[in-house]
Amino acid sequence: MSALSLTELPARVKIVEMGPRDGLQNEAAVVKTADKVRFIDLLSASGLAAIEATSFVRPSAIPQLDDAEAVMAAIERRPGVTYLALTPNMRGLDRARSAGVRAVAVFTAASESFTKRNINMTIAESLATFATVVRDARRDGMWVRAYVSTAFGCPYEGAVEVDAVVRVASALAEFGVDEISIGDTIGVATPRGVVEVAGALQAHMPVERLAMHFHDTRGTALANVVAALQMQISIFDSSAGGLGGCPYAPGATGNLATEDLLYMLDGMGIETGVSLEGIRAASRYLSGAIGREPVSRAYRALEAAAARA
Amino acid sequence: MSALSLTELPARVKIVEMGPRDGLQNEAAVVKTADKVRFIDLLSASGLAAIEATSFVRPSAIPQLDDAEAVMAAIERRPGVTYLALTPNMRGLDRARSAGVRAVAVFTAASESFTKRNINMTIAESLATFATVVRDARRDGMWVRAYVSTAFGCPYEGAVEVDAVVRVASALAEFGVDEISIGDTIGVATPRGVVEVAGALQAHMPVERLAMHFHDTRGTALANVVAALQMQISIFDSSAGGLGGCPYAPGATGNLATEDLLYMLDGMGIETGVSLEGIRAASRYLSGAIGREPVSRAYRALEAAAARA
Repeated sequence: MSALSLTELPARVKIVEMGPRDGLQNEAAVVKTADKVRFIDLLSASGLAAIEATSFVRPSAIPQLDDAEAVMAAIERRPGVTYLALTPNMRGLDRARSAGVRAVAVFTAASESFTKRNINMTIAESLATFATVVRDARRDGMWVRAYVSTAFGCPYEGAVEVDAVVRVASALAEFGVDEISIGDTIGVATPRGVVEVAGALQAHMPVERLAMHFHDTRGTALANVVAALQMQISIFDSSAGGLGGCPYAPGATGNLATEDLLYMLDGMGIETGVSLEGIRAASRYLSGAIGREPVSRAYRALEAAAARA
Repeated sequence: MSALSLTELPARVKIVEMGPRDGLQNEAAVVKTADKVRFIDLLSASGLAAIEATSFVRPSAIPQLDDAEAVMAAIERRPGVTYLALTPNMRGLDRARSAGVRAVAVFTAASESFTKRNINMTIAESLATFATVVRDARRDGMWVRAYVSTAFGCPYEGAVEVDAVVRVASALAEFGVDEISIGDTIGVATPRGVVEVAGALQAHMPVERLAMHFHDTRGTALANVVAALQMQISIFDSSAGGLGGCPYAPGATGNLATEDLLYMLDGMGIETGVSLEGIRAASRYLSGAIGREPVSRAYRALEAAAARA
């Protein structure tokens, strides 16, 4: 091709909102349960079809998310919205089930060093654990998502082989998970890598089950989305306001901001069903709760324009 | 196409550095001449082939750039580097000539309201003025660049018709300018608009003469670069550190940061001849001079990584 064909891009994209979990987990501030609940309810009101609401990890491990049961009990369960919760093990799955969770997520990584430091297992051990978690979750009729972190680079190992990503993702696909999210955890990816990884994965699983999770640490997240769209990827993770600083680079940004993603998709005529104004309202609310302005560029530009109007 | 073909992207990109002119012009701080000179010398040392160094506007109009002659006299003239200066009229061209400038730039816009407020002329009047400036500059053997601002949106009029951009750019092309830079002055473009505008322009002028000037106000600048690369555009404007806040949106960012652009192009294997470390050194220096951390995401992430190492 010599030109970007916009007609052959996916007509519709699903945004999976990461703010309440991945976002808050990586913020220094601990947010009150009531504020989280209001944040999630504002997010679901914006039209999002999938929101990762919390994590059933050991409460002492991540103090920011030690109120998983309380959050799940208090949020409005809007019809048609998938409320995801992370479940690192059988204990987590049991707690999630008791809390009425109907969609769970497991997470491993493409690099051994990261997996070891992040969840204290080898990749093989993590897959063995998740095989059981996924089997039981599916037996209960739950919807299951899996994350493959550090797919484009590892903070400890540097470059990550495409084959390593394919191996881990294929194993997860064989467990029968409904969706696999490929994560650029430290925000090093560029469009070339996205095309390579997305191309390699599509030989092993349907593109409809593949999601991409970009971090904007070096400003490349939306460029990577454009590359992924051209590989027919139509599911993207993002975080309202860009919530969630990157723990490995103080001062740098973390998750791709939902506002930035939505501004671009709206401009490209790609449907999402999500209201940008609605996401801004959620970010504005949470910004007040944590006492920090969102890092999202679209959020800032749109709020500044609104203030002048 | 169903996949992003990286082999058919331009193998080499020219970066036109905007920091010393467009950047400093839109910063609140007034920088000392010696600091500007050091900044420009650090930029040329990084391998950049084109740097917009200053502007020969009426000194009272833009106090930040009232030392054009002094800057041009003091910078190192590195062989092979084009040092551009803005020349809004014949008076400016005369001053530039006396200062030993060999490459000049003229600027108009695709929307009437912006042109009126920015340079107090209609588009037609600006073209009439520039016809003379370009003619005289070319007669003197100067290299000439032209800017078309607000090509993707106007702060006063909103959406801008593709035809309006084509009309203005075609007129400038007929004057025989060497390069035409199409500007997303307020940072509203998305890849769809980039493909439309680049496609329409290529019917009227060789793609080798077309540059794109994106602002990252809503985070879409690098995504737009990816779209433009696929349209075979191989000249991009950017500003070291992301220098130059957007005057229309306080708190929002302006020019695409050279570090972000370079990080992505390096990652895609596209040659530029520019050292990312060299640009960071220039940004670091200027950051000290203006007392503000660069907004570039790649700059921040790379500096944070260096500080940890």
